[in-house]
Amino acid sequence: MKSHEISAREAGERLLSHDNILILTHKNPDGDTLGTASALCRVLLALGKQARFENSDEIPVKFRYLYEDLPQEDFTPEYIVAVDVADTTLLGERLSRYADSVDLCIDHHISNRRYAKELYLEAEDGAAALTLYRVLQTMDVALTPEIADDLYTGLSTDTGCFRYSNASADAYRAAADLIEAGADNAKINEAMFETSPVSYFKLLTEVLTGMRLFGDGLVCVFKVTQDMLKRTGATEDQCDAICALSRTMEGVQVGITMKQRPDGHYKFSVRTRDHVDGSVLCGHFGGGGHARAAGCDAEGDEEKQLQEMLALIGEQLGRTI
Amino acid sequence: MKSHEISAREAGERLLSHDNILILTHKNPDGDTLGTASALCRVLLALGKQARFENSDEIPVKFRYLYEDLPQEDFTPEYIVAVDVADTTLLGERLSRYADSVDLCIDHHISNRRYAKELYLEAEDGAAALTLYRVLQTMDVALTPEIADDLYTGLSTDTGCFRYSNASADAYRAAADLIEAGADNAKINEAMFETSPVSYFKLLTEVLTGMRLFGDGLVCVFKVTQDMLKRTGATEDQCDAICALSRTMEGVQVGITMKQRPDGHYKFSVRTRDHVDGSVLCGHFGGGGHARAAGCDAEGDEEKQLQEMLALIGEQLGRTI
Repeated sequence: MKSHEISAREAGERLLSHDNILILTHKNPDGDTLGTASALCRVLLALGKQARFENSDEIPVKFRYLYEDLPQEDFTPEYIVAVDVADTTLLGERLSRYADSVDLCIDHHISNRRYAKELYLEAEDGAAALTLYRVLQTMDVALTPEIADDLYTGLSTDTGCFRYSNASADAYRAAADLIEAGADNAKINEAMFETSPVSYFKLLTEVLTGMRLFGDGLVCVFKVTQDMLKRTGATEDQCDAICALSRTMEGVQVGITMKQRPDGHYKFSVRTRDHVDGSVLCGHFGGGGHARAAGCDAEGDEEKQLQEMLALIGEQLGRTI
Repeated sequence: MKSHEISAREAGERLLSHDNILILTHKNPDGDTLGTASALCRVLLALGKQARFENSDEIPVKFRYLYEDLPQEDFTPEYIVAVDVADTTLLGERLSRYADSVDLCIDHHISNRRYAKELYLEAEDGAAALTLYRVLQTMDVALTPEIADDLYTGLSTDTGCFRYSNASADAYRAAADLIEAGADNAKINEAMFETSPVSYFKLLTEVLTGMRLFGDGLVCVFKVTQDMLKRTGATEDQCDAICALSRTMEGVQVGITMKQRPDGHYKFSVRTRDHVDGSVLCGHFGGGGHARAAGCDAEGDEEKQLQEMLALIGEQLGRTI
């Protein structure tokens, strides 16, 4: 099935003309899918409709403020909307039963698989929250401080607090509107970006202690073992933060995080600056990704593969690493 | 002397009606004073005037892109403008000779000492770059990508990349305009916020290794000795980053960084969340500051003072620490 693409105004009309609306979010939920869903839910409830949103997984505690005051309405859905869900596989196990019956998808992923009957897609938007905001602007609905908080959360989390290149002029302008509507931007950003669990600090200490630099500091290598994860209690998303850190040292062109899986094998996560293409690098080992963020598995001995990867980086940089 | 306060439009008129303009920035220059100065310098040069800016101190390498293409014009100043300089003491030693002859000050500090003949102040602005942007909007000047980069740098660095409460709707809206004018926001933010020297990583490793938690994780204590600073080569602003980190652990209400001075004595930097007033805490030891960021010196034994401080925190939190 290929979705029929519609405009923001048409998406708004669909929402206005239906009742008993179920909103679906993607698995391993983040601030954007949840913030977008809760904002939409609040708008629909304010219009006198029945609405609720669902997720396949447990929602991290830090996102609880987005929805804890929402009523848990029990009703048979008449219209199903997916937000920030690029593919039905991303609905997760519990929501997979809705895979063939999504009426409308509101999304910002260029990779959207067009599984919904209708699709409102803005592939340049840094967050689905911005895409939904475009819909709301056509609907003549009042932005309450709660709706503004929800949308701001989506916008801020998906753009790294407006740090990344996907933070467009439209994203900044929407944030300005949301702050004027009452979004508590400072409080949201403190909770999202300035709060890490103790386990992260413990893992960070161990990872930094074992940090290795190669090629006069051009390559930074972090290693995360299963033992370290068990000792510190750190989780998957904390490893992602470690991984992002690997590229931030002055002079580093490539950050490599070698992470051991439960089965003992290693996964390589590569982050690069301008001069090295991570997808080429990881492609050599059967992996892939983007130029600046890519990954691959280690087939056998991870230290041997690291040496091979360093040699390849040397080739790309035109020097010995 | 008390400055005559003028409007953005009047400030614009003054700039348009003078030539040979010297721009003064504050000592220990940051992205806001430099970005604002270089933006203003570019505008004045584009208007066919002579202009240059000066600073008392050495300018950190990471800010070089703001001004390295600007001509170093040699001329006798006819009109002197200070940007982001709240007090003449902040001009620093080299620029102190201009203290009594500043014609116009463009600033956003509510604490501005009104030393200039005329002052355009917007105390709600998160950055002097935003205050200057208000002036430029009255002047009918074209924003080049370079001017946009300069102003965006000021705006982003002084608001913690739009993370803090001083990132107002106006700040976000100005950023949107600047991005449309060609500001390379992602590149600027990467250089400003995602790049730390090796010495910072080394210091961080040592500090985290010695991290202590008190009161079931309500208080986090970091210690930075002169030995650590010498071993790692870390600088003062890297200590500030460590200090900010002390409050970011989940559950931590008070972060304390004990930093040894060259003379062997310790300074306490305190960062708090909502429930503890840091200025009261530090006031007890002869220090001061704000509710959420304060400091004091250790009179004698720093570990003894830490115990006293923990007891006081316990009193504020109504429990034993």
